[in-house]
Amino acid sequence: MEQVVVALDAMGGDYAPQETVRGAVDAVTENPEIKVILVGKEEQIRDCLSEYTYHEDRIEVVNATEVIDMGEVPTKAVREKKDSSLVVAMKLVREGRADAVVSAGSTGAILVGGQMIVGRIKGIKRPALAPFIPSRQGFSLLIDCGANVDARPEHLLQFAQMGSVYFEHVMGKKNPTVGIVNIGTEEEKGNQLVKETYPLLSGCGDIHFIGSVEAREIPEGGADILVCEAFVGNVILKFFEGLAKTFLGCIKEGLMSSLRTKMGALMIKPALKGLLNTFDVSSQGGAPLLGLKGLVVKAHGNSRSAEIKTAISQCITFKKNNINDRIRDMIQKG
Amino acid sequence: MEQVVVALDAMGGDYAPQETVRGAVDAVTENPEIKVILVGKEEQIRDCLSEYTYHEDRIEVVNATEVIDMGEVPTKAVREKKDSSLVVAMKLVREGRADAVVSAGSTGAILVGGQMIVGRIKGIKRPALAPFIPSRQGFSLLIDCGANVDARPEHLLQFAQMGSVYFEHVMGKKNPTVGIVNIGTEEEKGNQLVKETYPLLSGCGDIHFIGSVEAREIPEGGADILVCEAFVGNVILKFFEGLAKTFLGCIKEGLMSSLRTKMGALMIKPALKGLLNTFDVSSQGGAPLLGLKGLVVKAHGNSRSAEIKTAISQCITFKKNNINDRIRDMIQKG
Repeated sequence: MEQVVVALDAMGGDYAPQETVRGAVDAVTENPEIKVILVGKEEQIRDCLSEYTYHEDRIEVVNATEVIDMGEVPTKAVREKKDSSLVVAMKLVREGRADAVVSAGSTGAILVGGQMIVGRIKGIKRPALAPFIPSRQGFSLLIDCGANVDARPEHLLQFAQMGSVYFEHVMGKKNPTVGIVNIGTEEEKGNQLVKETYPLLSGCGDIHFIGSVEAREIPEGGADILVCEAFVGNVILKFFEGLAKTFLGCIKEGLMSSLRTKMGALMIKPALKGLLNTFDVSSQGGAPLLGLKGLVVKAHGNSRSAEIKTAISQCITFKKNNINDRIRDMIQKG
Repeated sequence: MEQVVVALDAMGGDYAPQETVRGAVDAVTENPEIKVILVGKEEQIRDCLSEYTYHEDRIEVVNATEVIDMGEVPTKAVREKKDSSLVVAMKLVREGRADAVVSAGSTGAILVGGQMIVGRIKGIKRPALAPFIPSRQGFSLLIDCGANVDARPEHLLQFAQMGSVYFEHVMGKKNPTVGIVNIGTEEEKGNQLVKETYPLLSGCGDIHFIGSVEAREIPEGGADILVCEAFVGNVILKFFEGLAKTFLGCIKEGLMSSLRTKMGALMIKPALKGLLNTFDVSSQGGAPLLGLKGLVVKAHGNSRSAEIKTAISQCITFKKNNINDRIRDMIQKG
């Protein structure tokens, strides 16, 4: 059994390091092939670790004295905080000591660090952050949701290619469908970027392009891979999150409004719970930053141990399926 | 009592002319100040009308032999189909025979016709489609949701100004808040358009600008007026629609899955129904196209008579509050 080594930014996220450390412990307990390197303030991490019994040969601690905060300017922070948990974790990937880095810290810093430290695959113009979002059919991959806005058509083409490789091997679905997020379904509709990207996607033999997907079709599973510019992708992702939360809040409020509804709520609870979990965007673990030489996974800022564990465990599939090699091969043959 | 004359594109929408005609009848029955001019194929319209008793002095029929279909290229359709219901209805506004036009037809054709036939207010660079979207606080005005994509910063500034005038007088809230839809809340975040627009909004004395609003805050009512480029606005609007529909579908499915849940459903039904209506985007009647010399209201393509009636009735508030005069004054003094 091949070992998958994950460098975890133990200081990243709203509930670090308590929840990150616990997520790491749970991940190695569940997956015998996982080894986690916890990167961050060693004393704090060891404090947290002391609460658990775990496979000591598969959890290592690497000290890093600094932390990149959410509010910092990403390029500056990555450049100046050389001993931050994120930067040190990424260096472990660059040096080949780890296969992947997982962080629930600042998205901007992860994007910048991924490119500056881990580095892009040769031929890739721009990496893309690609979370799965739930739909009634299962999941769609929304690519790009990062902070690299104002993309060009050739970037979107590569997003479609990388997304197809990733979806096919992670979801095990041959020839996944690719759609471009648009404001109408006719070819001549859309903004300049979409209009210029459309023929590139139509003409690309590597992907199964099905045309435009309107935002209203996304929740029903309009396409396996939803290609869009990062600003639009980020709006969709965050709006999904916000709307799901608001819906849930309203439903709960409605259910708790009287004795009658409280009784009704008890009867429907199990049925409703499954549904609500389905649409919890933040529970999907982490989103990979595709197009880099190593695996970089961004976990949600408010991740608890369960999400951290999922994000770590996802790295197994990624490594076993040689996603990066496949992406490189596809891009370099083109 | 001043009369408000609404030219209704009786042939526009999925359920025209049956539902449009019925909506018109209901609107004049409910509002003594409303007069509706039904524009479209006279014979069909009279057929529909014959089913109702109504105030004959306040419903008029104007014949138009053509119909613009949803799939047609807007500029071509508006230019060539001079006797289409939409074009004829818009001419009634231009000629001063009607105060407003309401249509559930092709958004593109309505935008093009609004600009070509009704005409822009002097000084307005671009009209904007501005629907209300529901939030937990009430409603937010999402401006622009039209098909005029790739806007420039000076357009977005005018959207903010027009939106503020409209919101203040329709919702009766002094100094409504304006936010720009962004992918982070810091000033330096966003795409090029947002970064260039931000200082224009900050420096504008006519509006109450509160900065960036992330998409996740929208459902909780992040700002009264949400300024964005049309592509992004359209994605938000359509995604809202799709997600609400999918949620409802899943909830219904969950509630009908067993005898136990069916019984529970009966007990919570009244409480849940109010919530679900709140988040039904399509029930909000129509969205005005702000910045034109007359009032142009776009109703949802799948409007039934109730939505058509609401869209017609909304024209009263618009006229009574002299929204267009106020917009003109604000823009021309600037």
